[in-house]
Amino acid sequence: MSQIVQRNSVIIAIKAVMTGVGQVMFQRNAISGILFLSGIFCGAYGGGFPQVGWGALVGGAVATLAGLVMGYDRNEGRAGLWGFNGVLVGCAMPTFLADTWQMWLLLIFFAGLSPLVKSGMDYVLAQWKINSLTFPFVSLTWIALFASRDMAAVASVPVCGEIVAGGDIDMSITSLLVYWLNGISQVFLVNSWIAGILFIAALAVGSLKAAFWAMAGSAVALGVSILFGADSQGIADGLYGFSPVLTAIAVGCIGSRTGIRSVIMGLTAVVATVFVQAGMNVLLTPWGIPTLTAPFCITAWLFLLPHCSGK
Amino acid sequence: MSQIVQRNSVIIAIKAVMTGVGQVMFQRNAISGILFLSGIFCGAYGGGFPQVGWGALVGGAVATLAGLVMGYDRNEGRAGLWGFNGVLVGCAMPTFLADTWQMWLLLIFFAGLSPLVKSGMDYVLAQWKINSLTFPFVSLTWIALFASRDMAAVASVPVCGEIVAGGDIDMSITSLLVYWLNGISQVFLVNSWIAGILFIAALAVGSLKAAFWAMAGSAVALGVSILFGADSQGIADGLYGFSPVLTAIAVGCIGSRTGIRSVIMGLTAVVATVFVQAGMNVLLTPWGIPTLTAPFCITAWLFLLPHCSGK
Amino acid sequence: MSQIVQRNSVIIAIKAVMTGVGQVMFQRNAISGILFLSGIFCGAYGGGFPQVGWGALVGGAVATLAGLVMGYDRNEGRAGLWGFNGVLVGCAMPTFLADTWQMWLLLIFFAGLSPLVKSGMDYVLAQWKINSLTFPFVSLTWIALFASRDMAAVASVPVCGEIVAGGDIDMSITSLLVYWLNGISQVFLVNSWIAGILFIAALAVGSLKAAFWAMAGSAVALGVSILFGADSQGIADGLYGFSPVLTAIAVGCIGSRTGIRSVIMGLTAVVATVFVQAGMNVLLTPWGIPTLTAPFCITAWLFLLPHCSGK
Repeated sequence: MSQIVQRNSVIIAIKAVMTGVGQVMFQRNAISGILFLSGIFCGAYGGGFPQVGWGALVGGAVATLAGLVMGYDRNEGRAGLWGFNGVLVGCAMPTFLADTWQMWLLLIFFAGLSPLVKSGMDYVLAQWKINSLTFPFVSLTWIALFASRDMAAVASVPVCGEIVAGGDIDMSITSLLVYWLNGISQVFLVNSWIAGILFIAALAVGSLKAAFWAMAGSAVALGVSILFGADSQGIADGLYGFSPVLTAIAVGCIGSRTGIRSVIMGLTAVVATVFVQAGMNVLLTPWGIPTLTAPFCITAWLFLLPHCSGK
Repeated sequence: MSQIVQRNSVIIAIKAVMTGVGQVMFQRNAISGILFLSGIFCGAYGGGFPQVGWGALVGGAVATLAGLVMGYDRNEGRAGLWGFNGVLVGCAMPTFLADTWQMWLLLIFFAGLSPLVKSGMDYVLAQWKINSLTFPFVSLTWIALFASRDMAAVASVPVCGEIVAGGDIDMSITSLLVYWLNGISQVFLVNSWIAGILFIAALAVGSLKAAFWAMAGSAVALGVSILFGADSQGIADGLYGFSPVLTAIAVGCIGSRTGIRSVIMGLTAVVATVFVQAGMNVLLTPWGIPTLTAPFCITAWLFLLPHCSGK
Repeated sequence: MSQIVQRNSVIIAIKAVMTGVGQVMFQRNAISGILFLSGIFCGAYGGGFPQVGWGALVGGAVATLAGLVMGYDRNEGRAGLWGFNGVLVGCAMPTFLADTWQMWLLLIFFAGLSPLVKSGMDYVLAQWKINSLTFPFVSLTWIALFASRDMAAVASVPVCGEIVAGGDIDMSITSLLVYWLNGISQVFLVNSWIAGILFIAALAVGSLKAAFWAMAGSAVALGVSILFGADSQGIADGLYGFSPVLTAIAVGCIGSRTGIRSVIMGLTAVVATVFVQAGMNVLLTPWGIPTLTAPFCITAWLFLLPHCSGK
């Protein structure tokens, strides 16, 4: 009997963690989560950074466990809302910091803090009927990355796909397709067109509309970043795409808005995100710190707020 | 019949845009707006930057149109509240970015976003009975200027009147008068004492009290910036004056405060704005981005908040 | 008769100022305040910066007087809540700026603004049942320090105990004891182990629990900063300790939380503060501006918010 209960608990826990992976792209869906995770591992092993895949898993599990220990609302836990920031913390820390035990200690500490930080930020933002999106992940990872420059035991690694003054951009159809898919894969800090395809599949399992918006978001972002002459290496690595992809899903998929008006708002938000992304690249240049998904959070809030005010 | 309606619509639209120009300095008044606009064009053509004048007009018109299309409250539109941030976006973009078609595209895009951003920010700040002042302009222009450093198709121009280590300041009466008037003209990013006089006239049409506070604000800011040894070129160009001028009108003209107490609060706010201005000059130095009217927004909020709390 | 009233007023005023000194570490207690002030003067004269002690006294007195003149709630004044930000402004300005009359003018102006800024910030944060902690001090001092780099009449002094790439840290017991006490003394920007002992005594007079948490906070911060290889000079000067000490008292001493859970939350908050401190050191490096107690404010808010939301 107690064995059955235990086995059930384990299954519930695994499902909660996987749903947490799904919630990174707003899918309350363990199958989507498993597909996302396959994409992450695929990109991580393919790129020679297996620790990024394991980081995602550890981060999601620790964050979900922390939510349980803190005694937060279990419905939120089952919906994957405790875990998704931890998944992203777990992707980001091994991407930007050297693979040492101190890094893993930091990863566990900050992933474990993420439900607490989310709870606090959501409490603040509930005042205006918006929520913290991925900002708990962004703020915690920023703290860790800034701190790493002041702490010799936590070394930074040269950022893969760092924004550097690149040459001309390759405009062949195959290249553009790769860039477009990279824009989607970078949502999980992975630079892999195969992961991009897996992520689209994962979205489609949860919501065809979300999959459509993700594809449109990355395409529009690619076009705008080329048109305005953004850095070619950054474009190729999908670094102008991942925040617009998230904005596209968040702003485009709002239920109560329908028709052409909703589409125009979604596309406008996507275009705005590209400029916020370019601006934040410059803002963070003095420290060499990545923007993470902050451009998405800021733009999505700007576009969701007037909606929430009932205007 | 339909012709009359159409002509009326055109007149209402023009009036709304002009009132929007007036609202930059809190004047709900199309005549003030026309006088402000004359000053802008005067300074723009006089300084060899005609695009700044046309930018103001285009920005105001696009923002007003955007408010109409978004279906916002038409009373706000008639009061010029849709347009004034767009006017300032339209002044700033051609001042700091090269005169290319991409710049004009950005100008239209960001001016068009300004009513949306204002609506969101006002919704947030309504919680404390304050509003977004010119911060939608500041944040949108900052995004564009930061992004321009990451996008080759949008080049920055050397800032006219950029803050550089200057020599000694010229303390003759005529020079001080010019500096004082420049402090007022720079509210619209124009460096012209003639525009300064026109702006005082425009204010006086709307409110003598506002005209008085603008003059006092620029004078006090001039004195404080000289006393504390601020950069002489910046002082001469009125760059320590424009934010204090706006603070002076905003804090000094609050209806419910009267008498000597109100005057002291207004002057204290003006002095504080000069230090916030100097501090933000330093803060933004690593990127060479101007403060715009952020020092005004921050200081005015600080001084208006305790007032709103009923203390 | 009127003499008695006057004498009483003077005593009440002195008591309010001293209680304000006590409130820097959350002690509503004039005796604690006097002990804190002895520690400040002891460290200030010992280190050759007597102006820091006098600054604390002037800042506290000016801020208390400003609260009176502004007509704020006198119960708050008697509780030392008008004065404590002014005390800290008064410690910080002579520490980081040269000892000129303009510096004293700035000190008086900004200390005098502190009750107004506190009132505004508290009004904003009351929405979430938190308060501004020492953030009025932080923001006002930041404005002054940033502005000082733009104003020739207010020169910066080389920061004593500035964070520089240091050698290996001295791990002898006596050295570690000194570092641990320095972490406590730096709450008032003083680098003196004797002051640290006086501050612990001052806390113990008000609350034994607070004294315990301050000692634990500094010890844990010392351990974490050594473990993660933070800068050795900064560790020796207690610069990784003062914000965690404040976090420890603020988060650890919350009445409604008891037992092991409360202790774990307090210690977690202390550890988090060390990383926020290290991160902010890096963030502010381009300008050479100190973090002041911002890491404490940010971390304490993060940990107090979920508590306030009733979770």
